[in-house]
Amino acid sequence: MTYQAPLQDMQFVLMDVFGAAEQWQSMPALADNIDADTALAILDEGAKITSELLAPINRNGDEQGVKLVDGVVITPDGFKEAYNTYAESGWAGFGGDPEFGGMGMPKSLGVLFEEMCYSANNSFTLYGALSAGAALCIHRHGTEAQKKLYLPKLYSGEWAGAMDMTEPQSGSDLGGVRTKASPQEDGSYKVSGTKIFITGGDQDLTENVVHLVLARLPDAPAGSRGLSLFIVPKFIANDDGSIGARNGVNVGALEHKMGIKASATCVMHFEEATGYLIGKANRGLIAMFTMMNYERLSISLQGIGCAEMGYQMAAEYAKDRNQGKGGVHKTDATADPIVVHGDVRRMLLTIAAMTEPSRALAVMAGMELDKSKYATAGTKEAEQMVNLLVPLCKSFFTDLGLDSTIHAQQVFGGHGFIRETGVEQLVRDVRIAQIYEGTNGIQALDLLARKVIPHEGAALKALQVQVSEVTAAVAPEYKGWADSVDSAFGRLLDAAQTIKNADNATDSVNAAAVDYLHAMGYATYGYLWLKMLNALPTSSQSQQFKQRKVAIAEFYFGRLMPRFDAHLASALAPTDVTMKLANELF
Amino acid sequence: MTYQAPLQDMQFVLMDVFGAAEQWQSMPALADNIDADTALAILDEGAKITSELLAPINRNGDEQGVKLVDGVVITPDGFKEAYNTYAESGWAGFGGDPEFGGMGMPKSLGVLFEEMCYSANNSFTLYGALSAGAALCIHRHGTEAQKKLYLPKLYSGEWAGAMDMTEPQSGSDLGGVRTKASPQEDGSYKVSGTKIFITGGDQDLTENVVHLVLARLPDAPAGSRGLSLFIVPKFIANDDGSIGARNGVNVGALEHKMGIKASATCVMHFEEATGYLIGKANRGLIAMFTMMNYERLSISLQGIGCAEMGYQMAAEYAKDRNQGKGGVHKTDATADPIVVHGDVRRMLLTIAAMTEPSRALAVMAGMELDKSKYATAGTKEAEQMVNLLVPLCKSFFTDLGLDSTIHAQQVFGGHGFIRETGVEQLVRDVRIAQIYEGTNGIQALDLLARKVIPHEGAALKALQVQVSEVTAAVAPEYKGWADSVDSAFGRLLDAAQTIKNADNATDSVNAAAVDYLHAMGYATYGYLWLKMLNALPTSSQSQQFKQRKVAIAEFYFGRLMPRFDAHLASALAPTDVTMKLANELF
Repeated sequence: MTYQAPLQDMQFVLMDVFGAAEQWQSMPALADNIDADTALAILDEGAKITSELLAPINRNGDEQGVKLVDGVVITPDGFKEAYNTYAESGWAGFGGDPEFGGMGMPKSLGVLFEEMCYSANNSFTLYGALSAGAALCIHRHGTEAQKKLYLPKLYSGEWAGAMDMTEPQSGSDLGGVRTKASPQEDGSYKVSGTKIFITGGDQDLTENVVHLVLARLPDAPAGSRGLSLFIVPKFIANDDGSIGARNGVNVGALEHKMGIKASATCVMHFEEATGYLIGKANRGLIAMFTMMNYERLSISLQGIGCAEMGYQMAAEYAKDRNQGKGGVHKTDATADPIVVHGDVRRMLLTIAAMTEPSRALAVMAGMELDKSKYATAGTKEAEQMVNLLVPLCKSFFTDLGLDSTIHAQQVFGGHGFIRETGVEQLVRDVRIAQIYEGTNGIQALDLLARKVIPHEGAALKALQVQVSEVTAAVAPEYKGWADSVDSAFGRLLDAAQTIKNADNATDSVNAAAVDYLHAMGYATYGYLWLKMLNALPTSSQSQQFKQRKVAIAEFYFGRLMPRFDAHLASALAPTDVTMKLANELF
Repeated sequence: MTYQAPLQDMQFVLMDVFGAAEQWQSMPALADNIDADTALAILDEGAKITSELLAPINRNGDEQGVKLVDGVVITPDGFKEAYNTYAESGWAGFGGDPEFGGMGMPKSLGVLFEEMCYSANNSFTLYGALSAGAALCIHRHGTEAQKKLYLPKLYSGEWAGAMDMTEPQSGSDLGGVRTKASPQEDGSYKVSGTKIFITGGDQDLTENVVHLVLARLPDAPAGSRGLSLFIVPKFIANDDGSIGARNGVNVGALEHKMGIKASATCVMHFEEATGYLIGKANRGLIAMFTMMNYERLSISLQGIGCAEMGYQMAAEYAKDRNQGKGGVHKTDATADPIVVHGDVRRMLLTIAAMTEPSRALAVMAGMELDKSKYATAGTKEAEQMVNLLVPLCKSFFTDLGLDSTIHAQQVFGGHGFIRETGVEQLVRDVRIAQIYEGTNGIQALDLLARKVIPHEGAALKALQVQVSEVTAAVAPEYKGWADSVDSAFGRLLDAAQTIKNADNATDSVNAAAVDYLHAMGYATYGYLWLKMLNALPTSSQSQQFKQRKVAIAEFYFGRLMPRFDAHLASALAPTDVTMKLANELF
């Protein structure tokens, strides 16, 4: 089937729910770059490129995968051509600084384009996502010379970026990184070590790959406080931006994976490779983390994109496939389309009822990122909100991405297990999003321990203020839902204190974190459904659109919101039930 | 890693929790065949064959897959040799009638061996599972001559069986089957048509394949009441059991699938193939359904087997992989094994807390099947219990199978996404179990509409009687849990009436069914945890075993049982929230 970007819903969320046009207008750096018409034209263009260029090469990308030939990664047929068009159309520099050739577009708009990309082609999209991440890091921490040298090439898509953090012995805990960097007389460094799981570590799409490598200086402190970050290009860049000598950066192997098979996941060997320190010595992890919110929000969109694509595939199949007879929606035919059956509707509505508030939350987080960067006031508050929302987005969107694609696959019955229908690829492709860019367990720990609990829940209380404004404004018929959402936020705040005050808070927080995050997710989606309902009356969308929104909201509050209680109860269970078993009895 | 059959737990469940030895002794047909010592020796033997013979060829089976060469399916390296040993050891005829060469073993024991098989090698196991199903069908519905001809060959494993039901236009709704059977003068039939998704439709393991084919006689009524069942062998069987002429049965294609790649999923073409009616004309579906409980219970074990294997892999990894520092379980090392972390424990304990009662429920259902077949009294009650439990087993075990393997994969972090570690294969292999042998949605509908609701909940009330006996007998410290389980069963009974009495009951039942099934699953697992706890004091298992059981039960009641409420609330949501949206707005 053909991917169709959900432009109506994107427009509704961006313009009607979050008033993006007015928001952008209030930020000087954005005001000249973007307005409502431009944004909608960009989304139209994005819809076109994703459905016409990226989606058609997705299935074959999975079948062919990447290959390592004579030390060079070869991407599947059509990737190179698609990448050229993508780069030439300016998408590689979409959010980049105009001073260095970027388009300077807001993240609140970018998240919607990124969602489309993931719907169309997960593997392809990762090449660009990593480049954007590398560019952000260089923009924030590089010297003026580094910015001038690398950013225009990354924004134009001529070069790509890669993030080299993980090593065999060091994944979630980067303190164990062993790659070494030795200072040279000319101010550069010689970098040596092995990195694994390097997305886009090499490819045949760009003439150069700019690696950002976490490594350890001689005599650096042990652990994560002794890591520094280095720019290590595949080819040394001459000052004029031309390609110089081949650097000691080599692909050791390609991983064979469950999914995203057209994305090159590389073992990288650095052998006395020339590198350049970026940011301060021993502050490499901090340099990495300052761009983390952008990166994590980007990866979170993989969950939404796959869920949306799964929905579209499953809904089309359900309206087309005839089996059995229905109840109120039955037709005169011998067999009805399976969309008449309550259980098929349950699956489709579950996807929709979770994907639509996900999209809203992505725009909300993107807008807060824009404010934290460009607003004339309230940047600190925006940053606090970003810090709170991003781990929720990363973890909840991608968990839902898996759930949604599994639901979509189930709608297909046996046909969903067959490769040709494509829905099983979505399941395999989205699965990695729960793991990389910080596992969802790590995200939950970050959310609860570092974002919710500190300062007596100040960040969550700030969100609660926004929630109260929305619940106070609902139409009378939604009052019951509003009460349940208000109550949920109150209980979340109380729960955080309970968990924090438990004996052995390290364990209580760690044991509770994922369930706490899910509880917060359901509460937040309740809030966003109400915010969307509040925006409906003045929206210019069609009556059908509005009718559908209300129906899906009803499904959400009737059938999914009850999960809040289960997750919160699980998070509040005595820590001991999780911790008491001796290690060796597992 | 090496698979280790969970023999301790199997022995505990079989002997201590369900008193299998006494039960078997009370059934004349079993009393001579099996006792406690024999059963444990068989489980030991099963553990050996699955870990030493089936597990080692599992990974390569996934990589090589099956191939279609000159119309014949070729299985991966090692399958043929393993199959020969499996058949020669008598496993193919494990539950078969001794009169025709079977071993006459009880299903309550068989389920444990089948679980082991699925832990070790899903694809391999399916070849035998389908044969056992075909043999059951022929045993129940065949003529004496058919039994004499086919059963010894199926029990010895020289021939295999296949079930040919689905057609492109007809899956969950078999009323649309179009394959035709024309009567011949000699009493046989000519069968013509195309079947899809035929597991083990062909292979190179056995000299013959006995297809059981649903087809339509001339002038048969339309729909599912016009289907008859035919034995259609790949090679015509001579009366002496030797192989005769090649029949018009051909593999059209092999499906390319997400998982179980070493299992041949065939498109089968029947072209004027000679077939023999089995059972009565136009009663083919009923003939199929009488063996359904055995088949569905067998397939359900795929969920448990994969969950157990996932647990073993993840637990080993968690005790071996060092990252970060823990709380109460921290060591003096720089980094602790990740099993110290609350969230890693949560994932492992979730698998264990669901897998262990699953195993108990499988044995319980197996024992009820044995009683329904062999007991001197109470066979009707046993059959009612089987009918109630089997759709729950099929759906809940396999849903948990996916959840559990996903949890196991998450414990591995990035390494879980790489093919070499093997855990991602488990995810891909187990996924089909939620779909085939009746999708889990169909199972839920069967459970609620046909098993729970009729006769004012009589079957569920019968289970409730057993539950009450167990909850009344708990130690004082478990009284709170017992109350929650009693209350859950009361609420399940009430909910069934509410759903049945709703307007448009067709829709209300269909919309609620899956959540209802899950609610019943959590209630039933609460019951089984209590039953296991009650059996601990007199069990001969070690103190460590008992300590572990109690700890996992605490985790279950603290962190998983709250899901009961969420599922029941979702099942009881107004039907309208699922049904109101017009078909075309999906």
